[in-house]
Amino acid sequence: MKEMLFPEVDTPALLLNEERLRGNIAVLQAQADQAGLALRPHAKAHKCAQVARLQLAAGAVGLCCAKLGEAEVLAQAGVPDLLVTTPVVGALKIARLMRVARQAAVKVVVDDERNIHDLAQAAQAAGIVLAVLIEVDVGQRRCGVPPGPRAAELACLVRAAPSLTLAGMQGYQGGLQCVADYTERRASVLAAMAALKQSVDAVRQTGMDVPVITGGGTGSFPIDIELASLTELQPGSYVTMDRAYAAIDWTGKHAGMPLQKPLSILASVISRPARDRAILDVGWKSASSDGAAPACLGHPGLIFEFAGDEHGQVRAANGGDLDLACGDRLELVPGHCDTTVNLFDSYVVHAQGRAYSTWSIEARGMSS
Amino acid sequence: MKEMLFPEVDTPALLLNEERLRGNIAVLQAQADQAGLALRPHAKAHKCAQVARLQLAAGAVGLCCAKLGEAEVLAQAGVPDLLVTTPVVGALKIARLMRVARQAAVKVVVDDERNIHDLAQAAQAAGIVLAVLIEVDVGQRRCGVPPGPRAAELACLVRAAPSLTLAGMQGYQGGLQCVADYTERRASVLAAMAALKQSVDAVRQTGMDVPVITGGGTGSFPIDIELASLTELQPGSYVTMDRAYAAIDWTGKHAGMPLQKPLSILASVISRPARDRAILDVGWKSASSDGAAPACLGHPGLIFEFAGDEHGQVRAANGGDLDLACGDRLELVPGHCDTTVNLFDSYVVHAQGRAYSTWSIEARGMSS
Repeated sequence: MKEMLFPEVDTPALLLNEERLRGNIAVLQAQADQAGLALRPHAKAHKCAQVARLQLAAGAVGLCCAKLGEAEVLAQAGVPDLLVTTPVVGALKIARLMRVARQAAVKVVVDDERNIHDLAQAAQAAGIVLAVLIEVDVGQRRCGVPPGPRAAELACLVRAAPSLTLAGMQGYQGGLQCVADYTERRASVLAAMAALKQSVDAVRQTGMDVPVITGGGTGSFPIDIELASLTELQPGSYVTMDRAYAAIDWTGKHAGMPLQKPLSILASVISRPARDRAILDVGWKSASSDGAAPACLGHPGLIFEFAGDEHGQVRAANGGDLDLACGDRLELVPGHCDTTVNLFDSYVVHAQGRAYSTWSIEARGMSS
Repeated sequence: MKEMLFPEVDTPALLLNEERLRGNIAVLQAQADQAGLALRPHAKAHKCAQVARLQLAAGAVGLCCAKLGEAEVLAQAGVPDLLVTTPVVGALKIARLMRVARQAAVKVVVDDERNIHDLAQAAQAAGIVLAVLIEVDVGQRRCGVPPGPRAAELACLVRAAPSLTLAGMQGYQGGLQCVADYTERRASVLAAMAALKQSVDAVRQTGMDVPVITGGGTGSFPIDIELASLTELQPGSYVTMDRAYAAIDWTGKHAGMPLQKPLSILASVISRPARDRAILDVGWKSASSDGAAPACLGHPGLIFEFAGDEHGQVRAANGGDLDLACGDRLELVPGHCDTTVNLFDSYVVHAQGRAYSTWSIEARGMSS
């Protein structure tokens, strides 16, 4: 008889192997330390104060947040230094930002004159000096000013506002992070860094200091280390990993970057409608579908396919019969970690096949 | 100057128009009543006790849940009659089911001998008689026994267990619900109902009663009403609607089925990187991507595209300039309501352009 995976845990559950997690945290911190670069891991991936505390204890200078709601939760949990990597726009959000700024050192990115004006006014009224970074669009085609002189125009606006201070600049290219081919990924990183440098140079030519140049992700990490164009690195997914990041090529100088996969979804078979198909209790509501479908951990011959909001289907790649009964369990490696983590309230933390704790995912759903 | 949409609400937020919601509830209830069919709306779509209460007040016989976790939350909130439409498998879940059965009349579907045995044993130990329904696979290729005599075999197992009672049978075909073409959809409903009838007949031939035949969805609703093959209807999405359901053809006898769109996502422009592109604060973490992308409500000339976990992009279909500034707002109609609702903790309830309440989405994330 097969041994049941985690019989004490009901499914679906989001499993996290603490040992592997700590391993990933240690590996990237050591590499950043060795290169003399600051590490500011992105909390948008794990959304968990306990993981943030482990990253800080290992040497991270602070955490990144994609949304103000994440920063609120992490500041409340005692994380002392936060960078919001998306513009904080509108009166309601700026008022919230001023409240977070009382709890933690919080920096935000800007790319818009009006937004700089609004932030300056709010910071002045709150009696604080807010640190901002100019965001540059280095190829993502999302937020950010175009490379070149526009950053200097905004930096001058920041300089002119006594309640603002220019902490640095941000250039993040998410699109290249999961490019599987190392050479292609490296070429994209070089292009992004060249674009960012245009803007940094333009700001420096005005006589202003750019103390922090922040960006980068898990896929670009070894290249960012090698180039040292950035002063601060923002990888997020490295801590949990997923199917997409596990599939990229780590060739080159840092070929051995030994990232493990701490994250999985525990699923149960709930129906065996045919000898070659098993139905799992995991669908779009407990595994995200914006990326690849989850993979069956330890069963390369099995294929998982979504079968609706609450269901998934497993079949053998070779079309053969399945040795799975109702109640049997599988671990699935998420296709995309960030959006899958956002579907769960807590991690079930485990080691040696035994669950021993739960860690709250405090920033789950904090999309505002 | 443009009037700001819901200036008192921070974004992203999940908006719900109560008047339109009540309208949809009333329309389907009236049609079910007129046809003499029971209406058991599916809570997997709205996940909200307050919406369930409105459906019950209008005449629903109870609610459906896809997951036991949803049933737990709704039973706790006082919903007295619940059907779990997915098999409840495994010792942990069955123990939870026994606890819910003390709070509400709860029925479950079955499709497996071992599961029937486990449920019978647990119900006996708990001193209750558990009502079960045999699930038949009527074309969905998910859970359920194949059409025909297999249902009768399971029904006999149920009959033999003193702690179980056969409440009826379920046949749901989710795949056909969003088929846009009415004629094609109707043909699929006919095929599904013919498959279900084979199983119902097989069970009745054993001398057993099949009091409830349950199934159907929003897309099949007018056809289910017309055919009256089912005794109980399970539509879910009709209450909130989404882009997929809004796009289907309601031709035929019930052409006028006047379902409104109560649900939208309030989004803000957070960056204007180019004259023809605006970046919104809505990405995969606040709008699901398993179906179509969201649509821009009231702006048929604008196209929304996902731009990552936390970002979306809007551009004009004709490639022209956008009249949108940072801080401006748009309402997005979700591509798929169920999985989008599952990303939010509450609805912001509004009428006449003003938000006046929030309703908790208690079953959000209750995927276990």
